[in-house]
Amino acid sequence: MRQVVMYGPGDVRVEERADPTILEPTDAIVRLSATCVCGSDLWPYRGAEPVDHQVMGHEYVGVVEEVGADVRTVAPGDFVVGSFWASDNTCEICRAGYQAYCVHRVLMGTIGTQAELARVPLADGTLVATPGRPDPDLVPSLLAASDVLGTGWFAAVAAQAGPGRTVAVVGDGAVGLLAVLAARQLGAERVIAFSRHADRQALAREFGATDIVEERGDAGVAEVKARTGGLGAHSVIEAVGTQEAMMQAIHATRPGGHVGFVGVSHDVAIPGDDLFMAGVHLHGGPAPVRQYLPHLIQLIWDREIDPGKVFDLTLPLDRAAEAYRAMDQRTATKVLLTP
Amino acid sequence: MRQVVMYGPGDVRVEERADPTILEPTDAIVRLSATCVCGSDLWPYRGAEPVDHQVMGHEYVGVVEEVGADVRTVAPGDFVVGSFWASDNTCEICRAGYQAYCVHRVLMGTIGTQAELARVPLADGTLVATPGRPDPDLVPSLLAASDVLGTGWFAAVAAQAGPGRTVAVVGDGAVGLLAVLAARQLGAERVIAFSRHADRQALAREFGATDIVEERGDAGVAEVKARTGGLGAHSVIEAVGTQEAMMQAIHATRPGGHVGFVGVSHDVAIPGDDLFMAGVHLHGGPAPVRQYLPHLIQLIWDREIDPGKVFDLTLPLDRAAEAYRAMDQRTATKVLLTP
Repeated sequence: MRQVVMYGPGDVRVEERADPTILEPTDAIVRLSATCVCGSDLWPYRGAEPVDHQVMGHEYVGVVEEVGADVRTVAPGDFVVGSFWASDNTCEICRAGYQAYCVHRVLMGTIGTQAELARVPLADGTLVATPGRPDPDLVPSLLAASDVLGTGWFAAVAAQAGPGRTVAVVGDGAVGLLAVLAARQLGAERVIAFSRHADRQALAREFGATDIVEERGDAGVAEVKARTGGLGAHSVIEAVGTQEAMMQAIHATRPGGHVGFVGVSHDVAIPGDDLFMAGVHLHGGPAPVRQYLPHLIQLIWDREIDPGKVFDLTLPLDRAAEAYRAMDQRTATKVLLTP
Repeated sequence: MRQVVMYGPGDVRVEERADPTILEPTDAIVRLSATCVCGSDLWPYRGAEPVDHQVMGHEYVGVVEEVGADVRTVAPGDFVVGSFWASDNTCEICRAGYQAYCVHRVLMGTIGTQAELARVPLADGTLVATPGRPDPDLVPSLLAASDVLGTGWFAAVAAQAGPGRTVAVVGDGAVGLLAVLAARQLGAERVIAFSRHADRQALAREFGATDIVEERGDAGVAEVKARTGGLGAHSVIEAVGTQEAMMQAIHATRPGGHVGFVGVSHDVAIPGDDLFMAGVHLHGGPAPVRQYLPHLIQLIWDREIDPGKVFDLTLPLDRAAEAYRAMDQRTATKVLLTP
């Protein structure tokens, strides 16, 4: 099969590799219908994380081709969506809703889903079958559920977005934009999106943003306070992963409010005294997407949400290098790859 | 009146100062029955915070002597307990339960309650009258409610201590010990206290600790994990304020668990990637003690709890320098001063 491999920063290639096989009786082999490039894939691409001949990709939807002897809940022919962490969904941590920390978790990025086929460990716990074979136009949205929608949803839940609350979103990438959608779905009346890009502002508004703020850092904080009676937002979502974004999120939140952070943290150090005086709740990390998949799949199936709109470029898998380049140069928000 | 003044690090004196007077119609003048030295007073005492001829003290109980024209809920003769933040208890932040961040807040430490009398701003919002004149043996417990009990209670709430949850407490000062008491009152079945001091271990057990762990740092974390099936505690309370204590708290908490931190933060920087991978909830800061005062006063009045046991030394106000010395040298956990 063909698979994307990052040889080093900026060097993405598509190679012929052996087809995956069932290794454990709990495995499934999935023929991928669609996969994509994640914002987090750009960290190694830009040299901000070490990378050396690494298989890439952790977002995926597709059709089950084969299952191990112990797999019960999915079968060959099922169209499935999985999360970027394989999880057993039965351990104490999973049952508490934190499948991204399952005691048996496997990071799908180490398997690589920017490929034609993927072995999915812990298939019963990881994969969720759709109600039937999806219409082709639903595939991008189902793919979004695999990570960016699930992550944005978790961020909104962590920030306790809901009725009566004003939510601000730091970051206008796919996760930030889908956090806007999630906040509105969870009942937030007012959603302030930080964005300086006209096309992303438009998508944020389409997903339900009521306010757009172009200022960043302290000026962005001041603008949120000015729009919330001087108090700050009830809920702020951090979907970038930088020091500036994290501090902007903390400072834009009112005392007693909630920050949900999902940007993969790079060189961030939160000053303890600053956090102490802020009085906010802080929660985040890798999203337990598996928890939300059944609900998100249903919302997509019923065409109540259309998160697939974050994909603004589709390329065949063979042109993966071009996909990375487009996201790196921000000429695309998120690129879908068709194997 | 006599009042404690810290001239500089290590230099605590008792001086004659003018009696306070009503400055605002919302003020009350309280004749203090008891006051005390806080663990946070030791930071400037040790030179870790700047201090120059600073009046000291923010914990207090006493009898109202005079009220301003607008005060409605307390009257001369009432025995009252107040928090270390004066708050209006009516603004949007107060109504959300975060009185320590009241939009009109006044820090009682800037007024100084290690004195014979104190002016309490925003008396209606700040002071809570006891059901009657307390028996003398209840006074230490009521004084504890003013800060250390209220702070320990908030930490336990922030850590979501409750039925079915295992709670660990980092810090065996008065706040940590009372966080043990609070966790048990909130229903926690198992409370692990970190302590190396026999007397504090004994008081922790008296307040309801089920386990004592003497290890600190990574070894302390490993011990908590060993006692919780490898997962970590559901709830961890940080009541110290150092980098080691904060990281010990974060790492001893299971993914999805809750850290409540109330140690006044000094030179703490939380690595973003560490927090990201931990997946915990983090909440803390100056405790909104006012929120809990009515409940805590009732528990004390009904003799259901005896938080006053954290005071292991009582001295007259004139010997304040000795009180600071005893706490600095850890020969006393907490010193009560009688004006």
